[in-house]
Amino acid sequence: MTFELPELTFVSILDYVGTLAFAISGIRLASAKRFDLFGAYVVGLATAIGGGTVRDLLLDVPVFWMHNGIYFIINLVALLLVGVLGKVVIRQKNTWFIFDTIGLGMFAVIGIEKTLAEGFPFWVAIVMGVLTGSGGGVVRDVFLNDIPLIFRAEIYAVACVLGGLAYWAFWALGFDSVGCGLVCGIVVILSRIIAVRYHINLPTLRGEEHET
Amino acid sequence: MTFELPELTFVSILDYVGTLAFAISGIRLASAKRFDLFGAYVVGLATAIGGGTVRDLLLDVPVFWMHNGIYFIINLVALLLVGVLGKVVIRQKNTWFIFDTIGLGMFAVIGIEKTLAEGFPFWVAIVMGVLTGSGGGVVRDVFLNDIPLIFRAEIYAVACVLGGLAYWAFWALGFDSVGCGLVCGIVVILSRIIAVRYHINLPTLRGEEHET
Amino acid sequence: MTFELPELTFVSILDYVGTLAFAISGIRLASAKRFDLFGAYVVGLATAIGGGTVRDLLLDVPVFWMHNGIYFIINLVALLLVGVLGKVVIRQKNTWFIFDTIGLGMFAVIGIEKTLAEGFPFWVAIVMGVLTGSGGGVVRDVFLNDIPLIFRAEIYAVACVLGGLAYWAFWALGFDSVGCGLVCGIVVILSRIIAVRYHINLPTLRGEEHET
Repeated sequence: MTFELPELTFVSILDYVGTLAFAISGIRLASAKRFDLFGAYVVGLATAIGGGTVRDLLLDVPVFWMHNGIYFIINLVALLLVGVLGKVVIRQKNTWFIFDTIGLGMFAVIGIEKTLAEGFPFWVAIVMGVLTGSGGGVVRDVFLNDIPLIFRAEIYAVACVLGGLAYWAFWALGFDSVGCGLVCGIVVILSRIIAVRYHINLPTLRGEEHET
Repeated sequence: MTFELPELTFVSILDYVGTLAFAISGIRLASAKRFDLFGAYVVGLATAIGGGTVRDLLLDVPVFWMHNGIYFIINLVALLLVGVLGKVVIRQKNTWFIFDTIGLGMFAVIGIEKTLAEGFPFWVAIVMGVLTGSGGGVVRDVFLNDIPLIFRAEIYAVACVLGGLAYWAFWALGFDSVGCGLVCGIVVILSRIIAVRYHINLPTLRGEEHET
Repeated sequence: MTFELPELTFVSILDYVGTLAFAISGIRLASAKRFDLFGAYVVGLATAIGGGTVRDLLLDVPVFWMHNGIYFIINLVALLLVGVLGKVVIRQKNTWFIFDTIGLGMFAVIGIEKTLAEGFPFWVAIVMGVLTGSGGGVVRDVFLNDIPLIFRAEIYAVACVLGGLAYWAFWALGFDSVGCGLVCGIVVILSRIIAVRYHINLPTLRGEEHET
């Protein structure tokens, strides 16, 4: 067994930081619901790799984690961090918020670029950016038997849409993929930080008065 | 970006009418649960394209909406309709019931024909017809954190099974795909209308007395 | 329509016994929640073939049940057994526990060998063994709108991990696939029986005091 250990580039480090933050968010919520160690591990994993997995199935390309075991190891690290350090880790809310937001931006860029590389048009790439960034959180909440958080609160997916539009605009202006990706990531991260800082939420529809 | 705008045939118009009806059903339920605009959009989309997406993944063919952005636009129209007209739209229960039922018949036919075109036997095609027609509703209810409605009430999936059997019978009698598809769609639509009109439901098993 | 009736080998018989036991577990729980016949059938099917379906999508190989209708027939038999014999069937808890555990071992072996045959490394094969054995139960619980049982209790997935490690160890020792598979299945079955007999559970994390 060889975990094809990938070279550590700037991009891959951000990817792994995001993976760790996503995994911790899943493990934290799973342990709050008294999931056992295995359940917490699976929920952490689903949060971290769920979006990218669905993306790769839709694109019909090899699923990324099946060729790189590092994501399973990062998730194990996340489990150990939460298990050993417990509340000390969990209370670093601001740190994890920043890491989680970096991960969101990174995942959106990866989703967009992987989709463009397969020859799909930009609107599909933006959909895949959103899916890569926020799909894992949906799987996490389905496993936790909660209504997916991103459907009710938080400018999370919308930050990915804005980042995707920025990528598209800069690409149309002639920037290369490094420039476009950088702008995209920055737009995602700033959008989310501004939204959280100023309590900006999307409105709800007033279609019906009460639940059915 | 080009939304490969498809030619408007009789078949595609029915497909889009069904998509609109399915999307509205998802958006309506999402807004009743106080989902925000993004959440309502995603639930509408999942209801409209969820079944066909799973079907295409199982068939290992390109996922239909990744090559035709019209479904995303129809879902946006559905969101606007519910958002702007609100209760006026929602109260047209009979209209949406008819559109939803036309969509069900159309989706079942599409699922069956796409599966036969890939060389699978008829029983797989019927499974895919059911999945195309009712899979989206299951995804919708999972996102809404409800028990899928079609597992507890409504002759919905069974209408697709009956339509599929009718397709098969007429194909065995030598009819071409237009004839078989027409019969299939009519059987699906009539089955559902009759079931709703006469309050016909499937029985439940009495395997256990109480929930565990 | 031809259900490619497969030859009955020792392996396939164990596979079908496991399928029946998995299907009954799903149908039993669905009927306890007042699902109708169709809902119970779908939940039984999802429990029995859900894990293998996700596995085949991830491996990008033809989905196993699309080329062998026997799984749909076994699920129908399960529905009839629960429907006709009702509590008589359900009360055979020990019998179904044994069949279910045999199925778990069998499914784990199938998942591992199918993955190795596609050229993936052992750690991916073990992941796929776990997924084949326990994925169906997760889909079942999502459909039932419950928190997946295997995330909170039961040494179920862990038994598959232990079996997978045993497969790997014996393969490294030079055993052939029959020997490795046999050892793997036995380890899965014994692990689960011992865990249930001695009430062994995985610990939970104490990350947070209360649910959020």
